[in-house]
Amino acid sequence: MPQRRLRLGMVGGGQGAFIGAVHRMAARLDDRFELVAGALSSDPKRAQASAAEAGIARSYADWREMARAEAARDGDGIDAVAIVTPNYLHAPVATAFLEAGIHVVCDKPLAISLTEGEALAKLAREKNKLFALTHTYSGYPLVRHARELVESGSLGEIRVVQVEYAQDWLAEPIETSGTNKQAGWRTDPSLAGPAGCLGDIGTHAYHLAAFITGMMPSSLSAELHTFVPGRRIDDHVQAMLRYPNGARGMLWASQVASGAENALRLRVYGTKASLAFDQENPNELWFTPLGGSAERLTRGRVKSAIAAHATRVPPGHPEGYLEAFAQLYKDAALQIEALDAGRPLPAESLLLATVDDGVAGLRFIDAVLASSAADGQWHEMANG
Amino acid sequence: MPQRRLRLGMVGGGQGAFIGAVHRMAARLDDRFELVAGALSSDPKRAQASAAEAGIARSYADWREMARAEAARDGDGIDAVAIVTPNYLHAPVATAFLEAGIHVVCDKPLAISLTEGEALAKLAREKNKLFALTHTYSGYPLVRHARELVESGSLGEIRVVQVEYAQDWLAEPIETSGTNKQAGWRTDPSLAGPAGCLGDIGTHAYHLAAFITGMMPSSLSAELHTFVPGRRIDDHVQAMLRYPNGARGMLWASQVASGAENALRLRVYGTKASLAFDQENPNELWFTPLGGSAERLTRGRVKSAIAAHATRVPPGHPEGYLEAFAQLYKDAALQIEALDAGRPLPAESLLLATVDDGVAGLRFIDAVLASSAADGQWHEMANG
Amino acid sequence: MPQRRLRLGMVGGGQGAFIGAVHRMAARLDDRFELVAGALSSDPKRAQASAAEAGIARSYADWREMARAEAARDGDGIDAVAIVTPNYLHAPVATAFLEAGIHVVCDKPLAISLTEGEALAKLAREKNKLFALTHTYSGYPLVRHARELVESGSLGEIRVVQVEYAQDWLAEPIETSGTNKQAGWRTDPSLAGPAGCLGDIGTHAYHLAAFITGMMPSSLSAELHTFVPGRRIDDHVQAMLRYPNGARGMLWASQVASGAENALRLRVYGTKASLAFDQENPNELWFTPLGGSAERLTRGRVKSAIAAHATRVPPGHPEGYLEAFAQLYKDAALQIEALDAGRPLPAESLLLATVDDGVAGLRFIDAVLASSAADGQWHEMANG
Amino acid sequence: MPQRRLRLGMVGGGQGAFIGAVHRMAARLDDRFELVAGALSSDPKRAQASAAEAGIARSYADWREMARAEAARDGDGIDAVAIVTPNYLHAPVATAFLEAGIHVVCDKPLAISLTEGEALAKLAREKNKLFALTHTYSGYPLVRHARELVESGSLGEIRVVQVEYAQDWLAEPIETSGTNKQAGWRTDPSLAGPAGCLGDIGTHAYHLAAFITGMMPSSLSAELHTFVPGRRIDDHVQAMLRYPNGARGMLWASQVASGAENALRLRVYGTKASLAFDQENPNELWFTPLGGSAERLTRGRVKSAIAAHATRVPPGHPEGYLEAFAQLYKDAALQIEALDAGRPLPAESLLLATVDDGVAGLRFIDAVLASSAADGQWHEMANG
Repeated sequence: MPQRRLRLGMVGGGQGAFIGAVHRMAARLDDRFELVAGALSSDPKRAQASAAEAGIARSYADWREMARAEAARDGDGIDAVAIVTPNYLHAPVATAFLEAGIHVVCDKPLAISLTEGEALAKLAREKNKLFALTHTYSGYPLVRHARELVESGSLGEIRVVQVEYAQDWLAEPIETSGTNKQAGWRTDPSLAGPAGCLGDIGTHAYHLAAFITGMMPSSLSAELHTFVPGRRIDDHVQAMLRYPNGARGMLWASQVASGAENALRLRVYGTKASLAFDQENPNELWFTPLGGSAERLTRGRVKSAIAAHATRVPPGHPEGYLEAFAQLYKDAALQIEALDAGRPLPAESLLLATVDDGVAGLRFIDAVLASSAADGQWHEMANG
Repeated sequence: MPQRRLRLGMVGGGQGAFIGAVHRMAARLDDRFELVAGALSSDPKRAQASAAEAGIARSYADWREMARAEAARDGDGIDAVAIVTPNYLHAPVATAFLEAGIHVVCDKPLAISLTEGEALAKLAREKNKLFALTHTYSGYPLVRHARELVESGSLGEIRVVQVEYAQDWLAEPIETSGTNKQAGWRTDPSLAGPAGCLGDIGTHAYHLAAFITGMMPSSLSAELHTFVPGRRIDDHVQAMLRYPNGARGMLWASQVASGAENALRLRVYGTKASLAFDQENPNELWFTPLGGSAERLTRGRVKSAIAAHATRVPPGHPEGYLEAFAQLYKDAALQIEALDAGRPLPAESLLLATVDDGVAGLRFIDAVLASSAADGQWHEMANG
Repeated sequence: MPQRRLRLGMVGGGQGAFIGAVHRMAARLDDRFELVAGALSSDPKRAQASAAEAGIARSYADWREMARAEAARDGDGIDAVAIVTPNYLHAPVATAFLEAGIHVVCDKPLAISLTEGEALAKLAREKNKLFALTHTYSGYPLVRHARELVESGSLGEIRVVQVEYAQDWLAEPIETSGTNKQAGWRTDPSLAGPAGCLGDIGTHAYHLAAFITGMMPSSLSAELHTFVPGRRIDDHVQAMLRYPNGARGMLWASQVASGAENALRLRVYGTKASLAFDQENPNELWFTPLGGSAERLTRGRVKSAIAAHATRVPPGHPEGYLEAFAQLYKDAALQIEALDAGRPLPAESLLLATVDDGVAGLRFIDAVLASSAADGQWHEMANG
Repeated sequence: MPQRRLRLGMVGGGQGAFIGAVHRMAARLDDRFELVAGALSSDPKRAQASAAEAGIARSYADWREMARAEAARDGDGIDAVAIVTPNYLHAPVATAFLEAGIHVVCDKPLAISLTEGEALAKLAREKNKLFALTHTYSGYPLVRHARELVESGSLGEIRVVQVEYAQDWLAEPIETSGTNKQAGWRTDPSLAGPAGCLGDIGTHAYHLAAFITGMMPSSLSAELHTFVPGRRIDDHVQAMLRYPNGARGMLWASQVASGAENALRLRVYGTKASLAFDQENPNELWFTPLGGSAERLTRGRVKSAIAAHATRVPPGHPEGYLEAFAQLYKDAALQIEALDAGRPLPAESLLLATVDDGVAGLRFIDAVLASSAADGQWHEMANG
């Protein structure tokens, strides 16, 4: 029997925003959500026009009003809200919807401070609502398979983690042009929080490494840097990592890396084998045993129920970013149904990033800010 | 103002069929279609169950009945039908829906004989309805950009075309197992028509070459072969091509190529430069000038309105097969709206494959069958 | 105990010739040869200057004189001669040196006609001298390993062979410039023989496929073409192949393929697995099982005595074209010593191409010329 | 007129040593050296046997004796010595030969302490003899071209340097087996000096980055680590770098990176473009403009006199590690001839690494040791 589509609302994501449209496509792809309400912009006119363009029935000028009104509807209010605003609004908006008893799907970083994030985590637990964080890259089937490989011991004990995320779109001071909405808020500390490149893509790199290795660093030594003159926020971060088991790692994220598009790459070396993943070629995963030959594992051909759960089309028919994103919505739907029915969360949905991953990301941000401020002194991390 | 979603019906694509689900995701991705009716299986019970699973409101046991009933509905009948049946039904189903005044989106090959295909083309023209053929690979932005590069003269005069499509899923006689529905009908001449590998993937290779080069061969010398003992249809085709301008080419398609997933690849060499495209890595296109360095053009970064029209997410965020497929539905929606409004077809939608491409594909099939039967004698092609 | 360096002579390869210098470096690399005599040019002055530049002690103005004089020397005449002239001289020069009892290392193609080649083969057998043909690419360790994989049955029964050799250096009529010595003689039928691209690189492709698969076609259908206006010889060849075991194949060679440098590539598909080799990346070989993941085998890490015999430096330290070429000289040295001592040829040297491979290449040339002249009619091949 | 071959001696490199054979092939390839004398092992019997095997005329049991004796020969003593011993002997041996007035080609690292290295540099300058350090990777034509690209401003101002060198051959405690000579001395601080992985491959990474960017860090923060239990020396190093112009960098070297063969890779990002080089694929260099498409520059096709000077065979005919190594010998020969003739060093030879590069490498080693000992505190570097 088909399950009814869940009703989704959206806050943020009006015209000109990249990520709103992505969420809408992703929510739609697997047919588990129907977008019915939105407060797409703080500008009422733009909110209205954006909603109309997106075919959204109920448009609100204000997200507080939306939370109230949707919660008050009789049986057809939204089941969940997607929060796709600039960072500084994540926590207040999420709080409002959680308070209203509505499930939350939220962009990362979770919040603009650890305190704020921890409060949110506490609230989500109290309310027993879904709080999904859209760490898109963990939706790729081969990223999930990579995690399985580590967990199953195929790599042996992990020794080295190398993760990086390079882009070039902020290599020049485009935020001063006034025409690039994205660049505008992402380089403005009052909207993005204290972390620029660090919060925007550094947290993705950090999450990917943690997701696949199942490990978080015990301490780190980091340096933030701003290359573009006049920029008010970091556009480059480099860090060295120490893990509890003695493993070592390096993390690099840059938004001024000329020629780089969206180059999120992870390599993990264990005592028995290594693996390598490149987000720009997500249909392959490289596995190389110590002293052996590299194997190119492909999406669709790896024998893995976990990967299969995140796969839509046969081997050789490439999937991409939207499919990974859709996977988060698919898992979110599974969890919402279980929560609403009082059932345990389905096992196959448990790889979805949660508010706790968001808190971990904020701890990472805090540690990098602290270490960088102390000229790279090793900073102990209090994980979970 | 948002445009209303078009109402879509589907014939074929019940449980166990791969391509039905693909069409549904593709139609949904860009939010221009709503699937409301279907005759998903010739088995009434399976049809009913499949429709329920797919969330389809109106399920029919018979496609003839569906065509009649939908045409008779008052204002909310389907605008278009997606035909995803085994090949032998393409023409009869399409005919029924065209006769009922309903637009058609149809899988390839168009029909199981050239005669049948030509009649269909004639009918589609008379009825002035959309007849879109799902040559998926022409929906990739970089395939469209490749076509532009050729058309603009960047390659100079075309000299050599090398196209191939290799898979390995039929390397063993899996059709005898009774459990692989796909393999079953695709190797049964009474359901697939006289061409096996030739019709299934050879036509994709042929279309891709024609789409990008803008040229069709004037003659060909071909050989069909069946490697798997007991198989009743070809699983391998090789051909040499001569083009009107003196260019030469080779085409190879195989479903027994061990290790190959879905390896559709095209290389085109002109007097000034060459290009290369590999369907399994659709976010890149290689362009190499005579005597020069290869350039890796990427989806999202090529400066091209045509490619941009077929692109959803920024550079470095990979798109895949479903997005290419969705592009066909997006273009189809543009054309349906124009046709229904009596407007000319929008320029940006014109790369959508039509019933005429289907007829060209059938001419190619006929030519290969004829040349192969005559021990590879060069066969002149009467291209439209 | 070290073995003495063999004394090598050279005919052809004067200033401006590419291949002469390559032979000299290749002969030197493994320290088994010392170049002591030469007739490097038909122009006496150039011969003298070239010899001086190459540090050759005994320079001859005429190769007939050289054969006589070297044979007459008391104990320090050359052991072997390297023939690196334009094609039309291969047979006469080789004949003279064989008659003089001197071992021969000769460039391919063996001769400019099958008759000439067969006579040479007969003579070499009678004289019981080495006749090595420099099919360079069979000197790569991974090419030899590929052959082993096929021979050991790792691929199962071979079904499909795809081989190609693309270059672009003759895409324009550079032979008319008068300044490109290479282009001059290679496009002049009186110097190169009746086969242009076919003889120059088509024979390499043919030999590589035969070397790795251990199979020669039973018949072929081919077409030669000349793209460059005014050129007197083919610059493009395409062919379809049928093998005795029912396998099918395609061969393509072109010297007008814009952007291609020296792109010799082979793919072989068997019932169990496939392999792929690209001469431009000779330190890797791809092996993919039916339905499985591609494995990137690397030079140095494959477990193979045969590959190890052709390897000089550890894994990850790339070897290239000169090393492959040197391997031929290394194997030649092993055979010369054995022949001179009346010992059987060492097993590890037996992959060296012989005069019989040369004859096979000439049979291939003949077959392509005949089929092409008969508009692609299948031509039966009488393989040795 | 041909120049006479220079007479070369060798210290170290007896049977079982990898690098001795490499030096011999490299010195031979371009025919500028003749190996005539050696003290190949400290074990007299082994020295004798090794020399015989290598075809060396004059074998010495002791390198001090060799320096004396060769210097004393009348006109046919060695011109230069190649030092291929374990690290701790580099300085004493080099000193002896410099004192004897003999040119030196020496493996890296230069010495086992900065003091020792600086003394050597002083001596080399005083004696006005060649002191070439075999930083092999700077012999690659595309590495030299990369340097040119930076120097010419094609990358703009350098912002980010990412360099790494990963191997896996020491992932297990193979030094305890007693059978791996290499592993034995390289992990023994009394033979290798205080730096293990750091001295062995970290210095190569450091040199490559400095060579291409023309910049040396002003300070670094580093951490050494030993993963393999019982090992007496580091097998892993990670560092963050700051450059005088504000650029940032990271350096990683590991000999326990499972699956890595000899993966030396450099990426440099400037304000206008980036480049990437991978030692395992040395025939290509990637150049990507800000916001643009990656260009795959190939050895042989780049327009560069500097690259051409380091190239032997045409485009598409791959060169490798031995050719890069040979280039050092070729440049050394050019410099020796100039020095001996009292001419200025030829411009095309000036990219050869010198004793000063060796000192810079020792400064890098010192800085890493110091920073690592101080828990990663930033260490100022006193360059030159």
